[in-house]
Amino acid sequence: MRLSLLFMVCCTVMAQCAVAAAKARHFRWEVSNMFWSPDCEEKVLIGINGQFPGPTIRAKAGDTIVVELKNGLHTEGVVIHWHGIRQIGTPWADGTASISQCAINPEETFTYRFVVDKPGTYFYHGHYGMQRAAGLYGSLIVDVADGEEEPFKYDGELNLLLSDWYHESIYTQMVGLSSNPFRWIGEPQSLLINGRGQFNCSLAAAHTAGAKQCAAGGGNRQCAPVVLPVLPNKTYRLRVASTTSLASLNLAVGNHKLTVVEADGNHVEPFDVDDIDIYSGQSYSVLLKADQKAASYWISVGVRARLPKTVPALAILSYGGNAAAPLQLPAGEPPVTPAWNDTQRSKDFTYRIKARKDTNQPPPPAADRQIVLLNTQNLMDGHYKWSINNVSLSLPATPYLGAIHHGLQDSAFDASGEPPDGFPEDYDVMRPPANNATTASDRVFRLRHGSVVDVVLQNANMLKEEVSETHPWHLHGHDFWVLGYGDGRYDAAKHAAALNTADPPLRNTAVIFPHGWTVLRFVANNTGAWAFHCHIEPHLHMGMGVVFIEGEDKMHELDVPKEAMACGLVARTAAVPLTPATPLPPSPAPAP
Amino acid sequence: MRLSLLFMVCCTVMAQCAVAAAKARHFRWEVSNMFWSPDCEEKVLIGINGQFPGPTIRAKAGDTIVVELKNGLHTEGVVIHWHGIRQIGTPWADGTASISQCAINPEETFTYRFVVDKPGTYFYHGHYGMQRAAGLYGSLIVDVADGEEEPFKYDGELNLLLSDWYHESIYTQMVGLSSNPFRWIGEPQSLLINGRGQFNCSLAAAHTAGAKQCAAGGGNRQCAPVVLPVLPNKTYRLRVASTTSLASLNLAVGNHKLTVVEADGNHVEPFDVDDIDIYSGQSYSVLLKADQKAASYWISVGVRARLPKTVPALAILSYGGNAAAPLQLPAGEPPVTPAWNDTQRSKDFTYRIKARKDTNQPPPPAADRQIVLLNTQNLMDGHYKWSINNVSLSLPATPYLGAIHHGLQDSAFDASGEPPDGFPEDYDVMRPPANNATTASDRVFRLRHGSVVDVVLQNANMLKEEVSETHPWHLHGHDFWVLGYGDGRYDAAKHAAALNTADPPLRNTAVIFPHGWTVLRFVANNTGAWAFHCHIEPHLHMGMGVVFIEGEDKMHELDVPKEAMACGLVARTAAVPLTPATPLPPSPAPAP
Repeated sequence: MRLSLLFMVCCTVMAQCAVAAAKARHFRWEVSNMFWSPDCEEKVLIGINGQFPGPTIRAKAGDTIVVELKNGLHTEGVVIHWHGIRQIGTPWADGTASISQCAINPEETFTYRFVVDKPGTYFYHGHYGMQRAAGLYGSLIVDVADGEEEPFKYDGELNLLLSDWYHESIYTQMVGLSSNPFRWIGEPQSLLINGRGQFNCSLAAAHTAGAKQCAAGGGNRQCAPVVLPVLPNKTYRLRVASTTSLASLNLAVGNHKLTVVEADGNHVEPFDVDDIDIYSGQSYSVLLKADQKAASYWISVGVRARLPKTVPALAILSYGGNAAAPLQLPAGEPPVTPAWNDTQRSKDFTYRIKARKDTNQPPPPAADRQIVLLNTQNLMDGHYKWSINNVSLSLPATPYLGAIHHGLQDSAFDASGEPPDGFPEDYDVMRPPANNATTASDRVFRLRHGSVVDVVLQNANMLKEEVSETHPWHLHGHDFWVLGYGDGRYDAAKHAAALNTADPPLRNTAVIFPHGWTVLRFVANNTGAWAFHCHIEPHLHMGMGVVFIEGEDKMHELDVPKEAMACGLVARTAAVPLTPATPLPPSPAPAP
Repeated sequence: MRLSLLFMVCCTVMAQCAVAAAKARHFRWEVSNMFWSPDCEEKVLIGINGQFPGPTIRAKAGDTIVVELKNGLHTEGVVIHWHGIRQIGTPWADGTASISQCAINPEETFTYRFVVDKPGTYFYHGHYGMQRAAGLYGSLIVDVADGEEEPFKYDGELNLLLSDWYHESIYTQMVGLSSNPFRWIGEPQSLLINGRGQFNCSLAAAHTAGAKQCAAGGGNRQCAPVVLPVLPNKTYRLRVASTTSLASLNLAVGNHKLTVVEADGNHVEPFDVDDIDIYSGQSYSVLLKADQKAASYWISVGVRARLPKTVPALAILSYGGNAAAPLQLPAGEPPVTPAWNDTQRSKDFTYRIKARKDTNQPPPPAADRQIVLLNTQNLMDGHYKWSINNVSLSLPATPYLGAIHHGLQDSAFDASGEPPDGFPEDYDVMRPPANNATTASDRVFRLRHGSVVDVVLQNANMLKEEVSETHPWHLHGHDFWVLGYGDGRYDAAKHAAALNTADPPLRNTAVIFPHGWTVLRFVANNTGAWAFHCHIEPHLHMGMGVVFIEGEDKMHELDVPKEAMACGLVARTAAVPLTPATPLPPSPAPAP
């Protein structure tokens, strides 16, 4: 009685509740270091509740996710970013250390509480130092609300979270990246599918020149091959997300076509492909019809965009649907993913992605502001950095959100204006950077609330002649429309008219191709401090990002949990009244 | 003029200033991970200002040490403990995470400020997780104040900071210690003298059966042998301190006698030995007269108390005093340190240490309280722990000192009374523990201000039959008198009368021998939260310690830097007024 009254009030007041009331889904997690053998080689990684990858969160659109996160690491802070969730009204729950919150100290528990407002294929991961690369990640899948339907049909789901795996600890990796002389992390030792891979061997060695056969199914469940059971003639939604540290990937399923229907939690106009490219930070749903001979088929995941030194990861699509049956390796050769340097093929795939026609809401027709971000590799006092308009991002000790919430923005970070929002006319993006006088800064872009912002991501040549890399840029707090891609230097006079404002796809992560450009548009209407950065973990660590501040004048109104900001200047400044902590309602039993 | 007036005021008011005014000595340090090759094998360790070991602090008694410590680690907190400094009036500067302060977050700077009131041989080290074992340590040497003199004469000083070194990272070590099944860290790969050692080889292989010759002097200065230059017929004060993670050590100098004159910053009645035992957490000064043939002599540092699997470390005492001359390895065999299991010899050495007669101030004749601490190894839910009276120490998220300072002692840790201060009459210390129902707790002992406390450290058999280990117990905030040692179970009726209250040595670290007991006395007159624990790093990590609270009712009066306590409940509780931060006076140029 009382509940239903509450429900009616909720529906009346919020005007957006679906047929059934949205649920709060509670999770109690403890993050800790543990021994694990993702590719049959034992290492120390960061797991959650003793699992790697972390537990999958499954919710319905409109639900509130409540994660009571205990930091069980011994000396390290931790945060978790909910990748693709826009955190409307809860920017303090975005899980970016030094930006949206203070890292959670060891033995402390911090409660993330946010609404998953939009169905889609998401994931979560650490966003402090390089903890993502240490294994701190998992899937977050949001189904349509009760009574709602996806605009495509399928009979079952298969979930693939892709990552890459290094045998060096992230501590060693971070020291190397910060050292002079610089030490690059190199290529990953393995690719992982749902946290499992094969190091230096192949499940299909018989069909792979020079490869060593892995001892498949040999006891260690932590690195057992992933088997996806299907029933004949059923259609499956493969949810594929990539949280790699470095690798750009391609996924192909032997003998099966794939129909792309979702990208980064947004519908795309369906199109058929043999394989998909997926960059770190991206997710896709593809439909696969089990319309082949009832047998087993290889799923290949290979490296693109960098000369691969890593054996492709393999999983098995198994007709019959009996996951408990003894492992049957597919006959024949696994599908061969495209050549790493066939960039035109990558472009062809990416350019095909458009917003779904019947659900498309086009972007605002024009922007209020354009920010041009030149991506360059630079040397700073002998240290290799990635810079944006010659500024390498360094994060402050006091999180931006807390600093502004508490009125400390003039002292907590460099408040002397914004970083440059463009680069010199005469800069040649096809040549190594001549000017290496890059600086490190924690300055931010301040976006007018509600303004329409265009970002031109301009790629450039690296320090080495005739080399330019692929960078997947991820925006927090928003989806953006991808208005267009092109080669060489972006020239508004030449290119602006050809940008796609009719059916550009909405995404949260978009690539810039080597020596190319990408134009994005979003509406700066989400109060918060939002990272926008290359999703390649070592690149972000080397400064490849910027921070957008939105709704600066509204931030003091936010109901920020006090403990989220008790570090840096907030911890030192007696003059600042701290807002009372939000009490948690009594927790129901945690979800399994 | 103004200065001298200030000086006079200081002398009049403080009544304790020496002939010359005490100085403030400023240091600006940054802690960071870096590549280093302490034993010629490259690893990542924690250094300070790019050095390993950290810079030596040298001061005079009465000086104020000011260390502005920046945490340059990427995701880890850090603290530094000033081992042997009593922190009278500045318990917040003791540098124990979860006890005296919150760990300093990455990118933050915390300023330690404390008086070194007593001359002696000290050191500093990390006191968070197992960061000491990761290399976070250095020497702290306090000379007598101007105008004062030591009660012994010497012409020069030589400083030896001893440690042990593991090739596994501390992260892997910590995971292993916390795992079920348990993984012990094993014996160290190398012993280090002033941060340099030789892995798996010997500088004196020609004289050591089965040893491989090290490529001495071969380029890598990080692991070059330590050469101590001396002039003939001069007397040297060898300052020797041990900050090992595990190893108990013995140091011998070929052909030279040693006269022990100081232990842990306190004078001892001089006595002559061929070698000294030194346990982790201890320091000694020994006088060495360069009265042998002008040549080079080996200094050996070998393992005691555990079956050694580590090659002794060697340094070179070189007559002639030219450190720049090409390295001349001494002829002949290095001194052989005593057999690891000659426990009687260890006892003989340790029992000989008495307070120096002409400076001795005897302890109070009787104690107000006796606390008996039984040391046992236990299993708790399948995890190996060390327990004190069956309680394994687990530290709270809110540091004790901050919790009490802010009046949060009822909620920040378990306030349901004290941990047990004794153990059952019928417990057999010679047998493995029968009762393994050990618990973990953060309860504390509350000591009445000014009371005289006796602690009986009672060793016991481990889980394995007929094994008991040596544990060096270190007390923070105090020196204690070592009233006596004995074998078996301590029995006041039998042993109390024989305790030495005439000339017991003052120390801050004392061992319990296998199956033995040690009785200590101290006066609980130093307001603070003080750790008392086994100085073996993995043992403390496994819970082998207790916490003493002194002057609980005075703690709110302490002038604690606000940022030292901005974590845990202090960060969450709006009701607690935070004390203003202590402003730093303008810094002079940092000491070199």
